[in-house]
Amino acid sequence: MRIDQLISPDTFGFIAAALTTIAFLPQLIRTWRTKKAEDVSIVMLFMFITGLLFWIVYAIQTNALPVLIANIVTLILNMTILTLKLIYGRQPKSA
Amino acid sequence: MRIDQLISPDTFGFIAAALTTIAFLPQLIRTWRTKKAEDVSIVMLFMFITGLLFWIVYAIQTNALPVLIANIVTLILNMTILTLKLIYGRQPKSA
Repeated sequence: MRIDQLISPDTFGFIAAALTTIAFLPQLIRTWRTKKAEDVSIVMLFMFITGLLFWIVYAIQTNALPVLIANIVTLILNMTILTLKLIYGRQPKSA
Repeated sequence: MRIDQLISPDTFGFIAAALTTIAFLPQLIRTWRTKKAEDVSIVMLFMFITGLLFWIVYAIQTNALPVLIANIVTLILNMTILTLKLIYGRQPKSA
């Protein structure tokens, strides 16, 4: 019996949602510690955040609570990374 | 009538999936052009890629074709970003 036959699809879904949500926490910590995010694409952050807003609308419309929670957490993390990038980008390079 | 009442949940879902997938293309282009991804967290990339693999298993188990396609594209983009980061990270800083 294969492992994916022993574990329910929902379990895979929950692990997947947890990982793709929490993944942005090490990025936030790295940006906070190094005080720079020059290599992080601002276009990616804007597109990703816009996508998350659409996921949130979708989750509300379909009453999908796990999708809603995962996307709100991901949104908060990415908004914070974007804010840090904008703050650190304004400071002079020599600082 | 509000705009979210005029548009079906599926439409919001498709726009959301498209945006959170294609968002990684500008990151890939930026990394390719600047030849560096120092500020991009490798822990984020590993966690995100692992999460995408779980999404792919979930999509196969539940026969969710749109989820499968979106996650395969996102996986290819993120694997490429990770590969570029590893390649550029090996080169001497002065190069």
